Amino acid sequence: MSAAVGRAPLTSFGSRLHARMGAVGSAVCLGIDPRPTDHPLTHPDRVAGDPAGVARGVVELYRSVLEASHTRLACVKPQSAFFEALGIPGVIALAQVIADARSLELPVILDAKRGDIGSTAEAYAAAYLGDGVWSADALTVSPYLGPDTITPFVATARSSGRGVYTLVATSNPGAATWQDERTEAGRLVHEHVADHLQALASEHGRYGSIGAVVGATRGTRLAALRERMADVLLLVPGYGAQGGSATDVSQAFDRDGLGAVVSASRSLMPGADAADFAAAGADARSRIEAMADAIEGALTAR
Amino acid sequence: MSAAVGRAPLTSFGSRLHARMGAVGSAVCLGIDPRPTDHPLTHPDRVAGDPAGVARGVVELYRSVLEASHTRLACVKPQSAFFEALGIPGVIALAQVIADARSLELPVILDAKRGDIGSTAEAYAAAYLGDGVWSADALTVSPYLGPDTITPFVATARSSGRGVYTLVATSNPGAATWQDERTEAGRLVHEHVADHLQALASEHGRYGSIGAVVGATRGTRLAALRERMADVLLLVPGYGAQGGSATDVSQAFDRDGLGAVVSASRSLMPGADAADFAAAGADARSRIEAMADAIEGALTAR
Repeated sequence: MSAAVGRAPLTSFGSRLHARMGAVGSAVCLGIDPRPTDHPLTHPDRVAGDPAGVARGVVELYRSVLEASHTRLACVKPQSAFFEALGIPGVIALAQVIADARSLELPVILDAKRGDIGSTAEAYAAAYLGDGVWSADALTVSPYLGPDTITPFVATARSSGRGVYTLVATSNPGAATWQDERTEAGRLVHEHVADHLQALASEHGRYGSIGAVVGATRGTRLAALRERMADVLLLVPGYGAQGGSATDVSQAFDRDGLGAVVSASRSLMPGADAADFAAAGADARSRIEAMADAIEGALTAR
Repeated sequence: MSAAVGRAPLTSFGSRLHARMGAVGSAVCLGIDPRPTDHPLTHPDRVAGDPAGVARGVVELYRSVLEASHTRLACVKPQSAFFEALGIPGVIALAQVIADARSLELPVILDAKRGDIGSTAEAYAAAYLGDGVWSADALTVSPYLGPDTITPFVATARSSGRGVYTLVATSNPGAATWQDERTEAGRLVHEHVADHLQALASEHGRYGSIGAVVGATRGTRLAALRERMADVLLLVPGYGAQGGSATDVSQAFDRDGLGAVVSASRSLMPGADAADFAAAGADARSRIEAMADAIEGALTAR
């Protein structure tokens, strides 16, 4: 008899994400990009520049935001770079923010854009899709090294009900330089990456563990990539401050309004006039509700 | 009068690396890839599985190796993934290994393959090319997002005498899938990345801050890429355990035997029979000397 007999069937990342989106009526993914100097409540001056104090301020601010707004959030996306820039206290704060989100049953997509060869990719997967202090529900990864370097992340994710979002077409000004090179086979480089992800998703199950990052400002590309990756979960950054509108991002969803989450960070942050953490949480909540409603409206208007 | 008057001229990363290569007669870059279960001296069983104890064992092992062998090392290349996989104690250990290497005047190339859009790339640059606990001499970065995402790393590196090694052509089995796609312009994707780096290096100065990662097992590609990136510092992983020979890697150097370092990790690690840290250091030293001599021999035989 197999050792697995009696175990509850493992729920895939995509199933969990979709269940939550339905329950909260939102496709909003809150990007957590702590820039301490951007807000008086986390400003280093507040703690005389003490790095541990700065990191604690970041944890406290996002705890207030999550507690006030989690019932309208599909998920959260901490950006690892901003925590790493705060040193050891920063990566401890990252663990705390992840734990806070998970205690509110918010799926965590860790935006770390890792990628490396075989056994090294396994080490990254163990760090972020295992049971350690940075245990996230999904991880963003970079495809440049090749499909064999995505495999270890997918294997770990599948075995633990987690997800992997691979970069496909990003929103930054220079994204087209290599991603949109037309190859002899006639397709663009990012379309080749997209086709690989679609093949994986088709093999492993629709909306399960395989995801792709597609920027909101890629215009008509977004609709084409939604079609091209019919079984792949999309993560769409670039809404709001970066220029993508609700109508733009609505193209990332399938006919049932599923298959995508839209992230924003700067535009959802509480204004600098929020006098305390409670006020900051309330301000973020109203911004998040407005974004969730705008996307809902754009999906209904299609 | 400019505020810069009176400041000592900043020595570029490449100048410092070349000065050291000349002084120690070696182009060997020691890859620091801690896999604690691989060696009895770092095995978790030794410390009853205590994560902080495991991380301390890693620091102690590499301290012994560096103290015994630094006079034949051009530089070291810690692989961030293996430290991150050890959690908070692991990233503290990374800071300690970096500090140990720098106290021996060994340039540190942090292999973290980071990459992200504008302000996020700046955060990574601040984390690893700034003055924080993980202050390295150079950082590996991934190019998929586009040239504008390499720029912030280069700007930080240039202003602080540090280096940036961008992935160009890697050694893993699936490397060719996207890196070697032939574009309509006739060149391969990785050649386009290479041309961008060469343009940067030509603009900013030969063998200064701009580097490229080119795998040792890429055959005749290595010689072609050396020519194509005449002003770019190469970092060549894949020697030894991964299959590249001394003759293979000799193609990464220019006619003066400059412009490249060759990294190896597994094949330079002390054997499992090293009974204590001192014996482990001595064993690694003899492996490193053999590799340095093999490369020197291949360069002389050209």
